[in-house]
Amino acid sequence: MLNRFAVILCGGSGTRLWPLSRSLKPKHLLPLNGDSTLLQQTAMRIHSKVPASHLITVTHDSHRFEVKGQLAEVLPDAVHAVIAEPVAKNTLPAVAIAVKRIYEIDPKAIVGVFASDHAIDNEAAFLSAWDSAEIAAAEGYLTLLGIKPTEPATGYGYIQPGSALQLEQGSLPIASVLSFIEKPDKQHAEKFVAAGYLWNSGMFVFRADIFMQLLARHQPEISAVLAGLNAGNLKEQYDLLPNISMDHGLVELADNVAVVPVDMAWSDLGNWESIYLRHARNDDNNVIHGDVVSIDTHDSLLWSQCGVVTALGVRNLIVVRTADATLICDRNSAENLKLLVDEVKSRYSSLAETHLTVQRPWGTYCVLGEGPYFKIKRIVVNPRSKLSLQLHRHRSEHWVVVSGIARVIKEDMEYIVNVNESTYIPAGHKHRLENPGDADLVMIEVQSGAYLGEDDIVRFQDQYGRE
Amino acid sequence: MLNRFAVILCGGSGTRLWPLSRSLKPKHLLPLNGDSTLLQQTAMRIHSKVPASHLITVTHDSHRFEVKGQLAEVLPDAVHAVIAEPVAKNTLPAVAIAVKRIYEIDPKAIVGVFASDHAIDNEAAFLSAWDSAEIAAAEGYLTLLGIKPTEPATGYGYIQPGSALQLEQGSLPIASVLSFIEKPDKQHAEKFVAAGYLWNSGMFVFRADIFMQLLARHQPEISAVLAGLNAGNLKEQYDLLPNISMDHGLVELADNVAVVPVDMAWSDLGNWESIYLRHARNDDNNVIHGDVVSIDTHDSLLWSQCGVVTALGVRNLIVVRTADATLICDRNSAENLKLLVDEVKSRYSSLAETHLTVQRPWGTYCVLGEGPYFKIKRIVVNPRSKLSLQLHRHRSEHWVVVSGIARVIKEDMEYIVNVNESTYIPAGHKHRLENPGDADLVMIEVQSGAYLGEDDIVRFQDQYGRE
Repeated sequence: MLNRFAVILCGGSGTRLWPLSRSLKPKHLLPLNGDSTLLQQTAMRIHSKVPASHLITVTHDSHRFEVKGQLAEVLPDAVHAVIAEPVAKNTLPAVAIAVKRIYEIDPKAIVGVFASDHAIDNEAAFLSAWDSAEIAAAEGYLTLLGIKPTEPATGYGYIQPGSALQLEQGSLPIASVLSFIEKPDKQHAEKFVAAGYLWNSGMFVFRADIFMQLLARHQPEISAVLAGLNAGNLKEQYDLLPNISMDHGLVELADNVAVVPVDMAWSDLGNWESIYLRHARNDDNNVIHGDVVSIDTHDSLLWSQCGVVTALGVRNLIVVRTADATLICDRNSAENLKLLVDEVKSRYSSLAETHLTVQRPWGTYCVLGEGPYFKIKRIVVNPRSKLSLQLHRHRSEHWVVVSGIARVIKEDMEYIVNVNESTYIPAGHKHRLENPGDADLVMIEVQSGAYLGEDDIVRFQDQYGRE
Repeated sequence: MLNRFAVILCGGSGTRLWPLSRSLKPKHLLPLNGDSTLLQQTAMRIHSKVPASHLITVTHDSHRFEVKGQLAEVLPDAVHAVIAEPVAKNTLPAVAIAVKRIYEIDPKAIVGVFASDHAIDNEAAFLSAWDSAEIAAAEGYLTLLGIKPTEPATGYGYIQPGSALQLEQGSLPIASVLSFIEKPDKQHAEKFVAAGYLWNSGMFVFRADIFMQLLARHQPEISAVLAGLNAGNLKEQYDLLPNISMDHGLVELADNVAVVPVDMAWSDLGNWESIYLRHARNDDNNVIHGDVVSIDTHDSLLWSQCGVVTALGVRNLIVVRTADATLICDRNSAENLKLLVDEVKSRYSSLAETHLTVQRPWGTYCVLGEGPYFKIKRIVVNPRSKLSLQLHRHRSEHWVVVSGIARVIKEDMEYIVNVNESTYIPAGHKHRLENPGDADLVMIEVQSGAYLGEDDIVRFQDQYGRE
């Protein structure tokens, strides 16, 4: 019987869907396609074929707690197998570290590799293509899912398929691959579509041992680093890895590559225009999300995360409002958003990195306001979670419980703070906050002091290994 | 010698420059043309000719404290003569109530009436026109300042001037008036401009006794109400007044009307387009205010009051961002903003009325966040100001002082709360907050309770007559 594993790649710089995505909140962590996040949708889609315990998720260390938190909501058994990369090194190192782990369990295991931030509307077609790809993979092929183009897109790489392979056939044909082409210009894209080329979706299926052989042959450097990896040296070993993609580093160099053409209403949601195109439009051909008032406005995406977006007499725009920024972009310029985000980054760096609401392993906090000598946060602590035992050298903190119940350790005291009660932690006092209840603890924290940076923290004990 | 008075009319619904203006923050209260507000600029401009004690300001009761506060900053002696109308009844009743007061001091006084929310760049031309208008006013004419048109605007009424009056001449000619024309269409406007017609600026100069005579003749109803007015019956008498403008109710009916043509770089700042046209533009022909990042964006107004506005690849837009809303409007649609604001009002009423920061006679508060059972405010109390002695039936309040010093009365206790200290006011406890210091008191208030509406307040004593 087939021993099936899957790897989910959770990378991303948070640029393409800014201001909704941020470097600390890339698009797979966002609910862009319904109520659950793209990562959660991907995990559930894969879970149709793969048990949660055979699902390995690779992400950057800075996203680790949120990735685990999101998986815990839909597939708790997948949480243990989240690999946190200390440095992002493109897709090949991420795939390699996950496949090595699978190879050690079963060299003949069949592995599927999937991006965490794509939308696939036709799930049956996806699963059927995966079935077919496994037939080729079992025979030793490095197999790609190739998307049948719906338009001459210039934002994707193309695959030129060759002759049909003589294999036991699944429901879809399987072809050899003649060549890979990088993102083409419009003219070439039109030719490729007419000639039956396929979009490279970045989804792969292969046998673990075949992958390891290919890696040893084409990327001996990565193989050597992986061989020397142990629990204690991840950071040092990662620094030695090259920054290289699965495509460039392996797929384009291998000679046993196959492709399964598939039509599954796929999108990489690579910019706001693709979000516009995939959402239902109203009578004015607008996509509306959140609180929006529009008059004489057409062909636009109007998306509010916070506050009200209002539009009068405009056409063909992308408008996205968050608590701290508003983007107005012509739909034809959506592909160039990176230029704008780079400028934002240089002038307002935190605006490209985080939202006002920040995820922590124990819950969230949101900065409600700050000024000279004070900062105010709304803190939500998850049920039965606790912050680290810590102290701040420069700030004192007032806490008012507005919902739930708090257990507080302050120096050598331990006490409960109930709803509508408050407590005070002077600067320099060792303290710990815990939610001992079954409901969220919601607290208002008023910080005061001359220095209020997040780095004024000394951790003594931490459930999440952050000491 | 001339006994000179001036009346400033502070009306406005806060619609035309939404979301910056709100019904409780109309445009004269905004700093749209520099650091001071339009009201403050108007008061200072008039003060060049009129002592502060001869300046009467008429406003709606809901704007009274903010109007007084703004005048106090620039012309403290003008604060005592703010008339607060219980109901807005258009301009004629507002002018009449102010002129009656002047008439009782000196029937021969010369009165100038000015809007509080216009921009006048050439102040010397304004003052010179006012001088000329006074010559006609002294001779018994109801005299208007007529703006020499710079374009065939369709947003203003026009004045058709007649022959020159045979008066002692000031620096500008004074003409009789043949007719008044309401806002015309483009074609008529072009004809009027070619024929030397003038824009009706809504600025008038006349003798108090002449105004009272005209009022008695043309609006006997208003005269009668004014005659019956006393300190105790303002509200009842106001309800009896008709809703009628100075133009329709008096000027267009009088036969002793004169006009002084003037070219003074005037604008009524009647919509965002006029704000765009009056501000300095950058190399991309954009007007920028606040935190803005733009690339490949031209001919646009990008205005941020809070957060960052970012624009990519757009043209000819008006974009205005506040803490709670973003407006995107084609510049050609700026005149139709009322349509949008009406829709906003019907769906998010408070968004058309107030900002998150609310003026109070003692300072300001800003709602930083709210949710089930809690609301958080940042409260700023002006130096040596105090809130009313009050109690709340349904909510308790936690106060943390982040800057300045607070004196607190709670039931029969009185105590000081210093920076970084906090106190607690349980529901049902009578209390009072005061800033005894010379600097602002800044406080974070965390309210908790099942009902947190602003109307849960019982006032016992109040400096501002709000018991």
